[in-house]
Amino acid sequence: MKLVMAVVQDKDSNRLQSALVKSGFKATKLASTGGFLKSGNTTFIIGVDDEKKNELLTVIKKNCQSRDQIITPVSPMGGSTDAYIPQPVEVEVGGATVFILEVAEFKQY
Amino acid sequence: MKLVMAVVQDKDSNRLQSALVKSGFKATKLASTGGFLKSGNTTFIIGVDDEKKNELLTVIKKNCQSRDQIITPVSPMGGSTDAYIPQPVEVEVGGATVFILEVAEFKQY
Amino acid sequence: MKLVMAVVQDKDSNRLQSALVKSGFKATKLASTGGFLKSGNTTFIIGVDDEKKNELLTVIKKNCQSRDQIITPVSPMGGSTDAYIPQPVEVEVGGATVFILEVAEFKQY
Ligand code: NI
Ligand code: NI
Ligand code: NI
Repeated sequence: MKLVMAVVQDKDSNRLQSALVKSGFKATKLASTGGFLKSGNTTFIIGVDDEKKNELLTVIKKNCQSRDQIITPVSPMGGSTDAYIPQPVEVEVGGATVFILEVAEFKQY
Repeated sequence: MKLVMAVVQDKDSNRLQSALVKSGFKATKLASTGGFLKSGNTTFIIGVDDEKKNELLTVIKKNCQSRDQIITPVSPMGGSTDAYIPQPVEVEVGGATVFILEVAEFKQY
Repeated sequence: MKLVMAVVQDKDSNRLQSALVKSGFKATKLASTGGFLKSGNTTFIIGVDDEKKNELLTVIKKNCQSRDQIITPVSPMGGSTDAYIPQPVEVEVGGATVFILEVAEFKQY
């Protein structure tokens, strides 16, 4: 058995949770902040049998993978707002940092 | 040495914490939500020497074990409240999901 | 690779986070409470290559080590405030409890 700790962006957190439930994985969410990922993030703790580990990683990758997104800022990043013309910019969002640990023993009471 | 991560229901959290202190175990509580257990839950992180691990598991089991509880809902689960006669119903409460991990190294500063 | 879980006092948390960033370590902070340390505390999760583990531990020790601090209470610890003359007292602050776990597998998406 493995314990999977996945740090994902808040914006992917709800979608990942739904996907985990749909695939039959049981997860606990821990509130977390900063560090591995730029914006606010959530740490998932998921226990998984060895033979289902790859399926779990696929679910995480599919829902959280780092990707580019085109956004149009409503105000300039710096300087004067005079004659500001909003331009779409590409930003990287999402991403997951995943630690997989061996479970020595597992109990359910 | 082992690191014990126990996910328990919020309603058992304070009682478990008191029992851990009384038994001389040092724990850290992490705020967590959903997944393994139906309602809000708390994740305990407890470092324990191998020879005290079973004692710790007994404390967790004793304070958090899943059990039936008789409750009397104050309003019907659905439908009209006309002529509603409260009936006691049995619900399952509590429960603990416990991961035991081997600690490679432990430091205190 | 190792996963380092460090429980430190809130008062050292921001300084440790800055020091980790400056040294190039990526950490996630989890909100946590009580237990290992007297006041509010924070749990850091940090993934680290085996050859950088000692450097990481040095950063944690340097920023969080338990130390004595002289404080002057603004009011007496108990009893009447009549003729209260503030006296500096020595209290212990800081401290870190650090678990180092072996990482079976690491993924970044
Ligand atoms: Ni296993
Ligand atoms: Ni051991
Ligand atoms: Ni390793």
